[in-house]
Amino acid sequence: MTKTYSRPCIAAIQGYVPGEQPRGRTFVKLNTNENPYPPSAKTIEAAKAFDLERLRLYSEPSAIAVRQAAARRTGLSPDEVICGNGSDDLLTIAVRTFVDQNGALACTDPSYSLYPVLADLQGARVNRIELDDQFQLPEDAVRQAGDATLLLLARPNAPTGNSFPKETIVRLCEQFHGIVWIDEAYADFANDNCLDLVKRFDNVVVSRTLSKSYSLAGLRLGIAFANTALVFEMNKVKDSYNVDMFAQTVAAAALDDSDSMRENVRRIRQTRDWLAGELARLASTVHPSETNFLFVRPPVPADHMFAALREHGFLVRYFNLPRVSDYIRITIGTREDMEAFLSAYKEIVREHA
Amino acid sequence: MTKTYSRPCIAAIQGYVPGEQPRGRTFVKLNTNENPYPPSAKTIEAAKAFDLERLRLYSEPSAIAVRQAAARRTGLSPDEVICGNGSDDLLTIAVRTFVDQNGALACTDPSYSLYPVLADLQGARVNRIELDDQFQLPEDAVRQAGDATLLLLARPNAPTGNSFPKETIVRLCEQFHGIVWIDEAYADFANDNCLDLVKRFDNVVVSRTLSKSYSLAGLRLGIAFANTALVFEMNKVKDSYNVDMFAQTVAAAALDDSDSMRENVRRIRQTRDWLAGELARLASTVHPSETNFLFVRPPVPADHMFAALREHGFLVRYFNLPRVSDYIRITIGTREDMEAFLSAYKEIVREHA
Repeated sequence: MTKTYSRPCIAAIQGYVPGEQPRGRTFVKLNTNENPYPPSAKTIEAAKAFDLERLRLYSEPSAIAVRQAAARRTGLSPDEVICGNGSDDLLTIAVRTFVDQNGALACTDPSYSLYPVLADLQGARVNRIELDDQFQLPEDAVRQAGDATLLLLARPNAPTGNSFPKETIVRLCEQFHGIVWIDEAYADFANDNCLDLVKRFDNVVVSRTLSKSYSLAGLRLGIAFANTALVFEMNKVKDSYNVDMFAQTVAAAALDDSDSMRENVRRIRQTRDWLAGELARLASTVHPSETNFLFVRPPVPADHMFAALREHGFLVRYFNLPRVSDYIRITIGTREDMEAFLSAYKEIVREHA
Repeated sequence: MTKTYSRPCIAAIQGYVPGEQPRGRTFVKLNTNENPYPPSAKTIEAAKAFDLERLRLYSEPSAIAVRQAAARRTGLSPDEVICGNGSDDLLTIAVRTFVDQNGALACTDPSYSLYPVLADLQGARVNRIELDDQFQLPEDAVRQAGDATLLLLARPNAPTGNSFPKETIVRLCEQFHGIVWIDEAYADFANDNCLDLVKRFDNVVVSRTLSKSYSLAGLRLGIAFANTALVFEMNKVKDSYNVDMFAQTVAAAALDDSDSMRENVRRIRQTRDWLAGELARLASTVHPSETNFLFVRPPVPADHMFAALREHGFLVRYFNLPRVSDYIRITIGTREDMEAFLSAYKEIVREHA
């Protein structure tokens, strides 16, 4: 084997495996929580109006146009906003800002499988907070977070889809000695959010993404909200020109057209709630979802369901990991897609009986 | 002061300060080594043909279209290529892959001022290799690199503009125990490059960018070449979707239209060599340049020259740092821009006399 020259903490790991982006055969993609509807008409218009010749120049380093649009939408100041090349970029910045090598970050188990990978990449430990049978936070979450200096908390959670009671989060923020990073990638699909905690606590960051609710996964745009002291520190760590010029233009337009986003969210929630009812009738455990996906325990082995759905042309996500290997995660597509999906699911359940 | 919660190595630093991106008043921007010519017609065409509705989907994680285009251009395999959100992203990946916290990276002094900042962000030390009076590598470069596990070497160098003899680089690669990362951001403007060393040594990475020669600074696209073992390690560290879908399309088209790039490079080199001669006649020390900028010691204090040029509407770069504070760095614009620049420069020299 060739010498890798890499740090021991890098050489030891596999890295994060993103959901499959199929090439060749056409699938109905229900595996990476993309939005089935295209970006809004006004967003597309802004993209078309973008002056391509300006690409010869560097982008504005702080993505000021996006920060201003995000500030307008939230009532926070642009100085309380930092943009990332997707929210993964922001999560990376979080770990590099707040967690030393040989330090620790905390996250729940299960949760977004990137979090422990980010700890590995920093050479840091992971303090896991075990969710209970209902995938809810345990009473002693702060104790389980231990000596971590950063707690990454997806709310609503992925891949489970459920949210956590807000008073539980408030208690966490009060009691935890480090940064509580609330990853609200799915908050637009939820019943509430934690943005107000940014003003209430000096140790809270809330992050959002345009990938899901705004139908802009391919654009890579994440936004984090925090007090100016935290934003100042994170700005030191981010790459100077981390958000490209085209993305800045398109993202600002999308944020200014949130009504279109909300209309798509309404349709997706409706389809989600309909599908949840249908699947429950098929002897499946359907977890309560405040996201654009369902976390489902089928009446047949989950790995079999995953493979059989693929045969039928439907890609969903299966995690061969402790606690979640009995489940599949199904992104909510259009009503039409999900009706076709339901037929395939029914057929697989019937064949297996 | 509000509590920052950040790691000691982050709290202690200022971070990197990018060159000014002016807003409001119109300047001739000669401060961030942008290309004065727009992206090529075929590149613009590909950007216009991009299907904006596809932005709802995630981009291909490995930027395969760009890697294939880069492979076609270089004769390397796509598996020997990794793409970044600008080459700054790749440099960040380099440090996170090859340098432990409390480890060390090496770089020359002077060089790209981001390198020591990346060490700070990793909590690592910097082993500086002092360039000689002609900004050339010293005989004992490897000794000065010391215990560093990564040597970041800009060739041609910035902000000095000169290159290093290739045999010196080959010796470095032979003798240095860690990774030699040759940052070829400006190589398209140079007389030769080091891409062949990727095949010759197992510890060499060569990085390029579309920001300068391809007129695509605002797109954020960097490319690194290395053996598959090194690429494998760096892929663990990069964000999964670090290159957005639009950038992938546009970058692949740009790489496939390298003839247009080369024509712009030819014009810029011509203007550069003409301006170098003119400035030398004005009692200025003009450093030999293999880049799209000149590193010039004016006959008046450099900070005064910088400020006076700004008054005349020309932004150049001034670094208030040891060894380079007597110099200004001038990006080469169009011939027309540089003629206007030269007039202003002359006037400032005359007024100061």
